[in-house]
Amino acid sequence: LGPDELSIIDRYFRPLAGEGAFRLFDDAGRLGVSPDWDVVVTADMIAAGVHFLPDDPPDTIAGKALRVNLSDLAAKGARPLAYTLSLGVSSELGERWLANFAEGLHRDQDRFGIGLLGGDTISVAQGPVISITAIGLAPKDKMVHRFGGSAGDALYLSGVIGAGVAGLALLKRTPGPWGELPSERQEEFVRRFRLPEPRVALAAALADFAAASIDVSDGLVGDCDKLAAASRCSAEIRVEAVPFPAGLDPAHDETLAIRLLTGGDDYEILAAIPRENEVGFRRAAQAANVPVARIGTLTPGSAATEVLLGDRLLDISRRSYVHGRFEWTV
Amino acid sequence: LGPDELSIIDRYFRPLAGEGAFRLFDDAGRLGVSPDWDVVVTADMIAAGVHFLPDDPPDTIAGKALRVNLSDLAAKGARPLAYTLSLGVSSELGERWLANFAEGLHRDQDRFGIGLLGGDTISVAQGPVISITAIGLAPKDKMVHRFGGSAGDALYLSGVIGAGVAGLALLKRTPGPWGELPSERQEEFVRRFRLPEPRVALAAALADFAAASIDVSDGLVGDCDKLAAASRCSAEIRVEAVPFPAGLDPAHDETLAIRLLTGGDDYEILAAIPRENEVGFRRAAQAANVPVARIGTLTPGSAATEVLLGDRLLDISRRSYVHGRFEWTV
Repeated sequence: LGPDELSIIDRYFRPLAGEGAFRLFDDAGRLGVSPDWDVVVTADMIAAGVHFLPDDPPDTIAGKALRVNLSDLAAKGARPLAYTLSLGVSSELGERWLANFAEGLHRDQDRFGIGLLGGDTISVAQGPVISITAIGLAPKDKMVHRFGGSAGDALYLSGVIGAGVAGLALLKRTPGPWGELPSERQEEFVRRFRLPEPRVALAAALADFAAASIDVSDGLVGDCDKLAAASRCSAEIRVEAVPFPAGLDPAHDETLAIRLLTGGDDYEILAAIPRENEVGFRRAAQAANVPVARIGTLTPGSAATEVLLGDRLLDISRRSYVHGRFEWTV
Repeated sequence: LGPDELSIIDRYFRPLAGEGAFRLFDDAGRLGVSPDWDVVVTADMIAAGVHFLPDDPPDTIAGKALRVNLSDLAAKGARPLAYTLSLGVSSELGERWLANFAEGLHRDQDRFGIGLLGGDTISVAQGPVISITAIGLAPKDKMVHRFGGSAGDALYLSGVIGAGVAGLALLKRTPGPWGELPSERQEEFVRRFRLPEPRVALAAALADFAAASIDVSDGLVGDCDKLAAASRCSAEIRVEAVPFPAGLDPAHDETLAIRLLTGGDDYEILAAIPRENEVGFRRAAQAANVPVARIGTLTPGSAATEVLLGDRLLDISRRSYVHGRFEWTV
């Protein structure tokens, strides 16, 4: 239905990018107004049927709306400070829905040490639609971008890949190995889809040691493509090195590997770490209590990321989960 | 349909307010991160059928989404700096719609000297839904709030009141004196409803001279109530002193007066100016080329604003236009 994502960006939105918007090639913009800190701002909108299911609990919808933004800030090396909320609700959502929604926000505000800065609630024909702009602080001139990586940099990933897409599959009753797992594991996947765990604790390590970074929201492969392209590199990922959730081992299952690697809803961090920074980054991540794994390397060239399972190169055509019609993110 | 605006704020959203959010009693929040400037952030969402009509031109929809936010910044004494955009579009909106929408933004970015900082576009079942967070700078410690006014302060209004509601009435074919006016005047009202003129140029004068300020978006009377209540005052407005659009003179028409004074969509500024600042404020407004008129006074007490037409006290029950189900604004 219309041209692809990039041409829409190029034609309509890139001409609008202002100072500090990095021409819309990054996950967050920067306002250089403070002497010691850069103000980092990111915005994400989520809607029923696209980012969450209509009958998901309102508190997890609220939490997800906030956390997808905090994940962007973390990837930029910024600690969260505040956020604005715009909420479109339809008449069938009652007071109970709103109360539970606000409860989810309150819980996450306490957890992440941030406050609501302003907002707006309106009536819409079909809702809910939730838009959050999150504002964070990165140490002056140390904000991490998608660009900045170089061939030879190691690619590090936080956490595990695939829990979110497994949770969505379970909610949608899509068959897969997740259906064979004990119910506690299944519930954990569903919880993870509904309420991702943004890697806020990793922000300082990224600001200190990463050359480039992106949060993995649309699938590891597609997001790695984006980081590599912005850094004018290609990339190589070894599936054996990627941590997956216990019980979902794609080592001998190519289809499963592709599903987990392109499913999205991970909200982990993929970072390009220069060789000389690897020891420092690993130590800082450990001190922050965030597991990280070296899953590949930035390589010369401009080809799409090569994903190796053993000595086989995986053939991946659909590289990202597309949230809705198109997306452009700063 | 549920409890009124204030109880929803009190119950669900006020507990969420963080530092710099002024407990959600203001039009914009402040981030005190810069030595010479305060970062001022405001968010507004607009949707078809609520803030604009579904067949309004996309460029004016974009302009309105941006301008309602710039109007909030101006009222806080802040010059606009940047904004984030979250856009929910439905499948029937084609590329032409998007192009024209972006064109409207581009035009306003040039006009107001601001840049897009980031954003997100998603697919929604029924759109468009547009959420903008605008970020501005006010001189350090000179941000103007709704609170801060005192009994005895003069109430000043920029521009004229009623053009927006007349434009909406014309679009909806609601009978009224606007229907008798020449077509150029009618078109101007419609244009004004679709594309308000935020008083960005008045921001510096407000930062220097106003004790309190609010932008008039929901109707002069209701917004004056809000400023007065936040300032722990009452207020008196004399209708004879309020500038109305040429051709709409409510001096002898109480019904028309009430319609114009409570209709909303004015995006003018109402400010409380201490007596000793009146000369300075008038000079600064003149230098900024913004017409201002003294329309009343803050008075002691906590009653609703008294609106006097001659020596008659107008009986106004519906004091604001309610945009959708409920609103809360910082």
